[in-house]
Amino acid sequence: MTAAVRMTKGEQTREAILEEAAELASLVGLGGLTIGTLAAATKLSKSGLYAHFASKEALQVDVLQHARESFTDRVVRVAIKAPRGEPRLRALFEGWLAWQSGAYAGGCLFVNAASEFDDQPGPVRDELVRAERDKNETVTVVVRSAVTEGHFRPDVDPEQLAYEFEGMLLAQHHARRLMNDPRADERAMRAFERLVDSCRVAPRVAG
Amino acid sequence: MTAAVRMTKGEQTREAILEEAAELASLVGLGGLTIGTLAAATKLSKSGLYAHFASKEALQVDVLQHARESFTDRVVRVAIKAPRGEPRLRALFEGWLAWQSGAYAGGCLFVNAASEFDDQPGPVRDELVRAERDKNETVTVVVRSAVTEGHFRPDVDPEQLAYEFEGMLLAQHHARRLMNDPRADERAMRAFERLVDSCRVAPRVAG
Repeated sequence: MTAAVRMTKGEQTREAILEEAAELASLVGLGGLTIGTLAAATKLSKSGLYAHFASKEALQVDVLQHARESFTDRVVRVAIKAPRGEPRLRALFEGWLAWQSGAYAGGCLFVNAASEFDDQPGPVRDELVRAERDKNETVTVVVRSAVTEGHFRPDVDPEQLAYEFEGMLLAQHHARRLMNDPRADERAMRAFERLVDSCRVAPRVAG
Repeated sequence: MTAAVRMTKGEQTREAILEEAAELASLVGLGGLTIGTLAAATKLSKSGLYAHFASKEALQVDVLQHARESFTDRVVRVAIKAPRGEPRLRALFEGWLAWQSGAYAGGCLFVNAASEFDDQPGPVRDELVRAERDKNETVTVVVRSAVTEGHFRPDVDPEQLAYEFEGMLLAQHHARRLMNDPRADERAMRAFERLVDSCRVAPRVAG
């Protein structure tokens, strides 16, 4: 009996609003998401929205948490079904690319919010850092499993790999969203193969 | 006799304003840069600023062009002094990292603007795409020179390398600005070494 099954009507409404809010934030920026812009986009009354979210800042934090849960459901939980080690790392990367391309119309909420909030101390930035740290830790743990499974060399540094993994994802987001590069996903996968090749126990020459 | 030497008083004032505007945009976002916010930050009158910039959009485009010229002076021209091929690519990467960390208080104007404007068609987005294309082409040309100099294998794909180069820079920006990671530069350099190693004529095993 999961939490989702036991969701009350009020909770379901709140989740539906948060999904629309995340979509809006991906387009106008998380900073542009206010009770007012959300009311205009959803045709709900501002007073109705205030019943769910105490303030603009609370709304922005809640949207980040909502997006984080979606990410966990749609990317992490799916990747965990793949065998430990390299196959799981690949599933994580592929799922993540798909998430960046398809989860929200305006691209990845986290990537956009990072540029927006990196200079703005406060609860939104704090929540964003927590989310990024969690995702980074997931990658690190999966890389470590690739070492223990004997897929990657023992001297591979999981934190370094997680850093480079992040870079490949950011490059895909940039190439797709700003440059409209139709080869963005293909380039990301080639970058991933090079990275994995350089970590394998018997490294092949990367292409 | 360069253009800079022949700059009139009016042009010098304009350049000084643009430098302050770029600094402000790095902090509040390029979209938050308006004649009004610039007037407040510089203590100049709005009417005085309108003499230099016809509109908010014109100001935003001019700031991007100004930042692009600074980037060319401070990163590209310096890198070109290094020997062709791998040394020049390294100089470009190191200069670029330093630019992202130091050019403006709020981080790289281009990285921030990319998330902000990727969904907003118009002259600002167009100028940003031109700037990004130019920078990407610079990397591609330098990678190609590393192939012709015999530093990199002939089957290295310069466009793929430029894509991965971009990813490492985006990861450093993310790690420094949002995550306050003190090892961001070190991780970026290790990623660069791995990339270069995988391209060398006699590849070593990457660390």
